Amino acid sequence: MTDATTGRPVRRRALLTGGALAAGGTLAGAAVALARPGDTDVRPEGTVPVADIGGAVVPFHGARQAGVDTEPQAHASFVALTLAPATDRAALGRLLRLLTDDAARLTRGQPALADTEPELGLLPARLTVTFGFGSGLYRAAGLDDRRPASVAALPAFRVDRLQPRWSGGDLLLQICADDPVTVAHAQRVLVKDSRPFATVAWVQQGFRRAAGAEPGRTQRNLFGQLDGTANPRPGGPLETAVWVPDGPAWLRDSSTLVVRRISMNLETWDLLGRADRELAVGRRLDTGAPLTGTAEHDEPDFAAVDAAGLTVIPDFSHLTRARVTDDRLRILRRPYNYDGVPAADGTADSGLIFASYQADVTTQFLPIQRRLAERDLLNEWTTPIGSAVFAVPPGCPDDGWIGQQLLA
Amino acid sequence: MTDATTGRPVRRRALLTGGALAAGGTLAGAAVALARPGDTDVRPEGTVPVADIGGAVVPFHGARQAGVDTEPQAHASFVALTLAPATDRAALGRLLRLLTDDAARLTRGQPALADTEPELGLLPARLTVTFGFGSGLYRAAGLDDRRPASVAALPAFRVDRLQPRWSGGDLLLQICADDPVTVAHAQRVLVKDSRPFATVAWVQQGFRRAAGAEPGRTQRNLFGQLDGTANPRPGGPLETAVWVPDGPAWLRDSSTLVVRRISMNLETWDLLGRADRELAVGRRLDTGAPLTGTAEHDEPDFAAVDAAGLTVIPDFSHLTRARVTDDRLRILRRPYNYDGVPAADGTADSGLIFASYQADVTTQFLPIQRRLAERDLLNEWTTPIGSAVFAVPPGCPDDGWIGQQLLA
Repeated sequence: MTDATTGRPVRRRALLTGGALAAGGTLAGAAVALARPGDTDVRPEGTVPVADIGGAVVPFHGARQAGVDTEPQAHASFVALTLAPATDRAALGRLLRLLTDDAARLTRGQPALADTEPELGLLPARLTVTFGFGSGLYRAAGLDDRRPASVAALPAFRVDRLQPRWSGGDLLLQICADDPVTVAHAQRVLVKDSRPFATVAWVQQGFRRAAGAEPGRTQRNLFGQLDGTANPRPGGPLETAVWVPDGPAWLRDSSTLVVRRISMNLETWDLLGRADRELAVGRRLDTGAPLTGTAEHDEPDFAAVDAAGLTVIPDFSHLTRARVTDDRLRILRRPYNYDGVPAADGTADSGLIFASYQADVTTQFLPIQRRLAERDLLNEWTTPIGSAVFAVPPGCPDDGWIGQQLLA
Repeated sequence: MTDATTGRPVRRRALLTGGALAAGGTLAGAAVALARPGDTDVRPEGTVPVADIGGAVVPFHGARQAGVDTEPQAHASFVALTLAPATDRAALGRLLRLLTDDAARLTRGQPALADTEPELGLLPARLTVTFGFGSGLYRAAGLDDRRPASVAALPAFRVDRLQPRWSGGDLLLQICADDPVTVAHAQRVLVKDSRPFATVAWVQQGFRRAAGAEPGRTQRNLFGQLDGTANPRPGGPLETAVWVPDGPAWLRDSSTLVVRRISMNLETWDLLGRADRELAVGRRLDTGAPLTGTAEHDEPDFAAVDAAGLTVIPDFSHLTRARVTDDRLRILRRPYNYDGVPAADGTADSGLIFASYQADVTTQFLPIQRRLAERDLLNEWTTPIGSAVFAVPPGCPDDGWIGQQLLA
C-alpha cells in the first residue's frame, strides 16, 4: 500500500491500539489482565497474542482499501446491494459518505454514529470493510465511461450453473474480522444505513481457520486441499498483481474483485481414493507439495514422467490448469469456506466463496478461468453457482470517502 | 466433574497437548515456532495463548460429558437426528459406539477412522461433542421406563411460534470448538457416520465471541445485552444445578439440555430508546449492572423505588422474571448467536440458539420459562421458533461409549 499522506509505499500493518478498551469505558473495565489499554505498539500481522485478537485494528484510511492484501481474517460476510431506481450520482455520494463513516468508526472499535447496539461495536478484531462497485453503480451514476471494461458479468463458462440469488449486485461490502459477532454487527449497521438507497441482493457468509488456530499456514478448503499456495508473495509480486499502478484518480490504487460461489460436492469427492484426488489436484493432500516435489512451495516439474511413461502431474490437474508463472498475471486468492445446513439425507451444503483480487480481470483472472473451465478435473466435483465482478476503488484519506475520486 | 478412574470430583480442564501436531506429521511440520509439539502442560481454561487455540484439547472421556460445564467455545453446531424406523436398541448401540469413537478421536486432534478429509481433523481447538437423547431414542430402544419424565416436548407457551424444522429430534450432537473449520469437519464426519441409522432433523449453527477476543467476559447477544450473568458459579452451585447426583448408572452424572431457537426482532428492538430497553431487561446495557447497582454481579434491589414511587426494576423486566435465588434451581445458560441472511429489505434473520443445562427440566427450567412466558417484556421483541429437550447421558471411560449405561 501507499501511505496516504506521504505517498510512499508501505506495507499495510495491523495497528494494535487500546481504542476498543478506551471507548468501552466501564464496559471494558473488567476486560481482564491480559488486555493492555493504551498499547500503541505496531506489529506485523499474524503474530498477535491471544489477548489482542479482539483489540487489533487494521487502519481503514489510506491510498488503497484495506481487506485486499490484509492477511485474511477468520470470518467474512460478502453483502451485495441493488441500488434503488432513485439512487443517482448525488444519492450515491450520500450513501458512500455514510457507509464510509460507519466503516471508519467500526474498524477502529467505535460504534457507528447511529449505532443502536453500541456495545457490539467496541471490538474491532481486525475488522475491514472493503467496497466494490458493480457495473450497475457506474450506470446509476451516469459514469459508464469510467467503468473498467472488465467490470461486467463474466463470459458464460461451460461448467457454470449460476443462480441469480448468488450473482450480480451493484455495490459490494466485503466485511471481514477475526470475530463473528463483530462481522454480524458491522453487517447489520451497514445494511441498515443502506436501506434508503438500496436493497440486499445477496449475502454470503464464510469462514477460515480461527485467528491463532494455525498461524502462518496456507488454509485448507472443505475438500481438505491447501488453497492459496500460488498466491503472489508479499512485496513486488503482490504489488504488481493486485493494484492498478496509474491512471486517473479513480483508477490509480484500485483493484478488481471476482466473487464466485463454488458448490463442492463432498458426497462424490468422498468416494474418491486419495491417489485419484491427488492426481486431480496435482499436489499431495498432506503437504500440498506438487506430485513431483516434497514441500508446498516446491516448483512443479511438469516434464517428469513415471515408470509407465505418464507425466507425474497430469495435464488435467488443477495445478497444471491454474498455473501462472508471470507475476504480473497472478491473482490474489482470498477465499472463504461456507457450510450450510445438510439435507435430511446428510448431503452437505458446503463449498467455497471464491474471492480473487487482481489489477485486471481480463488479463489475469479470465485466462486462468478459461483453462480451468475447459479441462480442470476438479470440475467433476465443483459447480460455480454464483458470480459477480466489482471494481475496488482506491482508498480515502481521513477526511474523504470511498468513491469520492469517481463520484465527487 | 468426577474423574472416571478415581471417582473423585475434579474440575474439567483444557488439556493442552501436542497431539494435533504429532498426528500432523509433515503437515504440521511448518506449524510455526509458536506451537510446541509435545507440550503436555495442564492449564485452566480461558488463559491459552494464541498459538494454542488450535491445539487445545478438552478431554472427551470422563464420568460426565464434556461440552456442558466447558467454558463455551466460539462456534457450535447443534445437529438433531431422526432415527430410522429400523434403528432399534442393538442398532443404537452400534451407532453410538461409532459416533463415540469419532468424537473421541476428533476431540484429541486425530482423524476419525473413516475420515476422508483427515487433514481437517488435526486441529481440535477445544472441540467437544456432547450427546443428547430425545424421547424418541428411548422409545426406539424400548426403554421408555428409563426416560427422565421431563425429557419430552415442553408444554406449549403462549409466546411460542414453533416450527417443526427447528424442533424435536431423537439424538442430538452438540458440536463446539473455537475453530469453525473444526466444527464443520466434525459435523460432516458425524452426519456421514449416522447415515445408516438416522436422517438429519435439523441443524443450528451459532457463534459467540472468538477465542481470545474478550477472555473472561460475559457474552453479549445480538440485542447487545449481556447474556449469562446469572449463571451458577463454578464449584458447588454449578455442580448442584447441572448434574444428577445419584440414581442408576444411566442417570448419575447425567444432565438435561433444552435447546430453543429464539428469533430476535432487531427491527423493532432498534426503534426502542435506550432507557426503555434497560427497563425491559432490568439491567444497564453497558455494564450489565441491575438498574439498582453499578456492577454486573451486584445484587438487584427489587424494593428500591424512584422519585415517582415506581420500583426501579420493573416487575415485567427480564431480570425480575428470570430471577432464581436458590442455587439448586438455577440453570446453566450456554447460548449461541445465529445470524442468517437478511431479507431484500434488510430485515435481519438474527437470534439466539438458547441452550440451557440443568439437572431437571421440570423443577429448574420450567418455572423460569413459565414466568418469562407470562410476563417478560422482552417477549415483545423475541419469538421462540424452535424447541427440543434432551437427556444428556453420563460420560464414558476410555474403553466405553456414550449411552452404554442405558443401552448395553
